Amino acid sequence: LSSETFEVVFQPEGKRVECPRGGNLFDAAKAAHIEVASICGGQGTCGKCRIIIDEDRENAGPIAAEERSHLSELELSDGYRLACRTRILGGLTVNVPIENRTITGRFQLEGVEAPVKINPSIRKYLVQLKEPDPKDPRSDADRLLEGLASGCPTCSRVDYDVLKGLPRALRGARWSVTAIVLNDETIIGLEPGDTRDKNFGYAVDIGTTKLAGYLLDLNTGRIVAAGSMMNPQLPYGEDVLTRISYAMKGSGNLEKLQRMVASGVNQILIDLCLKANVSPEGVYEMTAVGNTPMHHMFLKLDPEYLALSPYVPVVTGSVDVKAKEVDIKMNGNGNVHLLPLIGGFVGADCVAVILATEIHSRAELCLALDIGTNTEVVLGNRDWMLACSCASGPAFEGGNIGQGMRAEPGAIERVKIDPESLDVQYWTIDSAKPRGICGSGLVDALAEMLKSGIVDAAGAMNKGLASPRLRSTENGPEFVLAWGKETRIGRDIVVTQRDVRELQLAKGAIHAGATMLMRRKEITEGDVGTVFVAGAFGSYMNPESARTIGMYPEIELERFKAVGNAAGTGARMALMSREAREKADEISRRVEYVELAAEPGFQREFLNSQYMPYADLSRYPETSELLRRLGRYPKKPIPFLR
Amino acid sequence: LSSETFEVVFQPEGKRVECPRGGNLFDAAKAAHIEVASICGGQGTCGKCRIIIDEDRENAGPIAAEERSHLSELELSDGYRLACRTRILGGLTVNVPIENRTITGRFQLEGVEAPVKINPSIRKYLVQLKEPDPKDPRSDADRLLEGLASGCPTCSRVDYDVLKGLPRALRGARWSVTAIVLNDETIIGLEPGDTRDKNFGYAVDIGTTKLAGYLLDLNTGRIVAAGSMMNPQLPYGEDVLTRISYAMKGSGNLEKLQRMVASGVNQILIDLCLKANVSPEGVYEMTAVGNTPMHHMFLKLDPEYLALSPYVPVVTGSVDVKAKEVDIKMNGNGNVHLLPLIGGFVGADCVAVILATEIHSRAELCLALDIGTNTEVVLGNRDWMLACSCASGPAFEGGNIGQGMRAEPGAIERVKIDPESLDVQYWTIDSAKPRGICGSGLVDALAEMLKSGIVDAAGAMNKGLASPRLRSTENGPEFVLAWGKETRIGRDIVVTQRDVRELQLAKGAIHAGATMLMRRKEITEGDVGTVFVAGAFGSYMNPESARTIGMYPEIELERFKAVGNAAGTGARMALMSREAREKADEISRRVEYVELAAEPGFQREFLNSQYMPYADLSRYPETSELLRRLGRYPKKPIPFLR
Repeated sequence: LSSETFEVVFQPEGKRVECPRGGNLFDAAKAAHIEVASICGGQGTCGKCRIIIDEDRENAGPIAAEERSHLSELELSDGYRLACRTRILGGLTVNVPIENRTITGRFQLEGVEAPVKINPSIRKYLVQLKEPDPKDPRSDADRLLEGLASGCPTCSRVDYDVLKGLPRALRGARWSVTAIVLNDETIIGLEPGDTRDKNFGYAVDIGTTKLAGYLLDLNTGRIVAAGSMMNPQLPYGEDVLTRISYAMKGSGNLEKLQRMVASGVNQILIDLCLKANVSPEGVYEMTAVGNTPMHHMFLKLDPEYLALSPYVPVVTGSVDVKAKEVDIKMNGNGNVHLLPLIGGFVGADCVAVILATEIHSRAELCLALDIGTNTEVVLGNRDWMLACSCASGPAFEGGNIGQGMRAEPGAIERVKIDPESLDVQYWTIDSAKPRGICGSGLVDALAEMLKSGIVDAAGAMNKGLASPRLRSTENGPEFVLAWGKETRIGRDIVVTQRDVRELQLAKGAIHAGATMLMRRKEITEGDVGTVFVAGAFGSYMNPESARTIGMYPEIELERFKAVGNAAGTGARMALMSREAREKADEISRRVEYVELAAEPGFQREFLNSQYMPYADLSRYPETSELLRRLGRYPKKPIPFLR
Repeated sequence: LSSETFEVVFQPEGKRVECPRGGNLFDAAKAAHIEVASICGGQGTCGKCRIIIDEDRENAGPIAAEERSHLSELELSDGYRLACRTRILGGLTVNVPIENRTITGRFQLEGVEAPVKINPSIRKYLVQLKEPDPKDPRSDADRLLEGLASGCPTCSRVDYDVLKGLPRALRGARWSVTAIVLNDETIIGLEPGDTRDKNFGYAVDIGTTKLAGYLLDLNTGRIVAAGSMMNPQLPYGEDVLTRISYAMKGSGNLEKLQRMVASGVNQILIDLCLKANVSPEGVYEMTAVGNTPMHHMFLKLDPEYLALSPYVPVVTGSVDVKAKEVDIKMNGNGNVHLLPLIGGFVGADCVAVILATEIHSRAELCLALDIGTNTEVVLGNRDWMLACSCASGPAFEGGNIGQGMRAEPGAIERVKIDPESLDVQYWTIDSAKPRGICGSGLVDALAEMLKSGIVDAAGAMNKGLASPRLRSTENGPEFVLAWGKETRIGRDIVVTQRDVRELQLAKGAIHAGATMLMRRKEITEGDVGTVFVAGAFGSYMNPESARTIGMYPEIELERFKAVGNAAGTGARMALMSREAREKADEISRRVEYVELAAEPGFQREFLNSQYMPYADLSRYPETSELLRRLGRYPKKPIPFLR
């Protein structure tokens, strides 16, 4: 590197940073405290650190081989680069697309939040002590505990790790310290002087695909910073079963997966702390939720039997460990609280959803759907609760769909098809030129295609329709949503017959899960008071479309309520409130776990649920009426399996 | 080493072991599971691994330089060798002197023991579980806890370290395991099958000089094995202050001292486990007592402020840590319980003495003396208790005394002097030829010398007496106890004027401590119901002699009760009984610590206590009467400082 430096400006913030000639933009972003997504940490292998150079492209070094493999020609010509491969040869203005930030724009941060009384497990107390003298030679620990007694009379223990540094901590602070107390019982940390106004906690949602973290002010409950990133375990399998089998394949693999998820949790924490000007060492509690395999891998618990019938977890109750035991870079002596689980495939994330939606204390019957690669379904109220997990797959995240993509700028997110002309209207995220279709766009498209007769109830495309948008290929028929000339990618964006089959499998899994739970209790659609739809995807989806294709049971539309990342919300509630933690423990004990594979009739129900909306149309009277009105009501009876 | 082997026989057990040519006797002893004392672990530096070769000496390799520096010519000619320096060149018969065993013969193993109900913190439960099936997919932890509930309904936690190995532990044992439960609350270990009949605990007395350990059967309270060894920290200072200053001198020194004491505690544990055929991994609890500096160093707690006025400990309450946190080689997840302390110089050993003697619940007023390098004095009953620590020094262990030695075979342990002829009768340990004088012999000798007029009340030797035993040297007068021709060492064994001064300092420190406590509460000798004398030395000493020289206050002789290693007894009681632990905590809180250095008048009292029996003879009417009868009553009044 030469001693010559150039100014790099990061937009839209306008943050400026001086960088040496030959340095790269990944390091420059770090220096500017700009979050850029990365799994590989700047090694050029993950392709996540995409940035855009709009002007003065000649001041950036040549395009590297790794960039050609991760970016399309069109993206390259648009100015897309990988930050870690882009050398700085002059002044540069760099745009970091919002979806490539660790903190993403569309990530659902708020969600519903049941009101909680602020009562965190971690409390800070100022303790001002008299120096020892021959008339008062009490031990340091007794002096500290007795000094604390006026503020926290029930605290009677000093953690062993605190004891080891106690004499110097007290004398170094001239006998005036802030004691960090866990559960009003144990002093787990000491800080010199009065730091009571700085008390922060960290809540994390450990998703299979995505990690989401929230830094909270424990004094006020305010979210001071929030962010998310891809789960660094992704290279070891998109789905949990692949990761479990990797974990079991070799000794040390489980530990490796644990280190990876911990490093992600740490990266978000450090980013949030930088942003909020908080020292990670001063964070004394973290709460975490996740599905059962993620929970187990985070805790280094053997996940082997989660993958084998009867799918038995190691533990379902809540677990508290010291941060240093799981390599979390908050205060090593801080407490990491994992919310309890329900069963082998219904995890702490589902408990958190119930906690956030308060199903456990509602009189009316509720249904909750937390939609993701696995979709958790909860049915119940204050009297009883059932939960199951459906293998809905990655289709709603754009996976296994020809032109599927995540909810990023340029994704088609809404679709309208004129039932007569088959003309298409679509809307994209950020109104950018379309690049692909995200989950809500796919559901919309399928519902519109059903209503327009482009697909029938069994999902078969009607090749007989006269429209240039409906065409045959060697892989079967496809329907054009956007013509190449309108798109960013220069090609038509289409929904293929195979895409339709994938979506049928996904929606059928969810519908079958909900139906199995309802059948257990002889519940019908009319009995359900509220349907909570959780997860980022669920929040942005048009519930009418989802109901039309039979992904949701036919319940009045006004009863649907999108609640965002309710799992993250539950984690935050548990961070802020001990009562919420107790409720979570109670929820975990009360919810009855239904193992779908072991339920009689599940396979039949899954097949019935492949039809749109459903094999038995009498359960979809409103949709049936709509299809009849549009002339799309099935001419032949659908084979319903009993 | 050649492949040729020879038989080595260890006597008196007659254990035989085959050893390679050129191997050494230290390794041979290990192979035969014969305990030989060692501090350096076979490096030839500590000189502790003394053994005797009676026959076939030519089959042992030549005498090494290290042996010449640790053994006298006479010892060498008696066949003494250092095991670690003795090469095996042929068949050998080796005698390990009992005092050089890790398990020493005269070590006081039993002592008084207040009756305790068997109620250890560690309990074992057999749990036989039904295998999971699709109708019963409970988590491993829930299955285990629910299976345990009939035996231990309050246990609701599985320790995180147990969780990590839980799936394999349960399946490997075909769902039939013994759960190890701490405090009826937490499962801290699992063993396959039914191991309930094997439940062992370890109690340790961590002395400045000596470590004493007891392996107990927690089901019955029986001591299955006991042993002791020198504290491996000894090379870093005979007294605690030297060790504290070493600990503070460099970073890592405290950790080093901790490792040394832990290695000693481990060595005894492993020896005892071998002897009792118990796996150290199967020991789940240890209790420990020790003075405050030993306690702190064992726990890696900063001892710096114990050496500086006002001598403040880090903690006084009881401390529980996992064995792995302090490198104890029992089950790493097992619990190590340190009994509580009283103050900077009155430690858990003193709490244990009170626990064992039950002073805290007695109606009558008691005095307890735990005699060692530091002597702890306790005064009180169920209403109040005072305690202090006296710097009595190493004289009673033979330290700083010309021909002092520990209580080993050949030590003069009792002495009688004819007040007319000044003829001496003496008794030695094991009736061996005398090699030196141990503590009880020294106290006896001093009392007899006082009664015979060989020393006066101020401790000055009466050079005017006509006896060949009383003679002048360039270092002052000395009195011959045993003539060279009678001894093993070939030299006269004498008590010098300097020895007398050392003993006066030691006995004066103890007397002054007891007096200061009595004065605080305006107690006189007649008020004291029982005097408990603890410690190995105290048990073997003639209380009349100790009272005559004024080491003990003048209390009726029948009120003295030797209680052996009461500190070790207290540690054992705490191991066997949770109620005993609670009592210990209560004792620690109730005892008022008296810092002698801060007591007004202590220095004067210490000077008064240098006289024999005491500067104010009115406090010793019976001894005064005895001296008067023998014509030894002081002619001039003793200067008494008020």
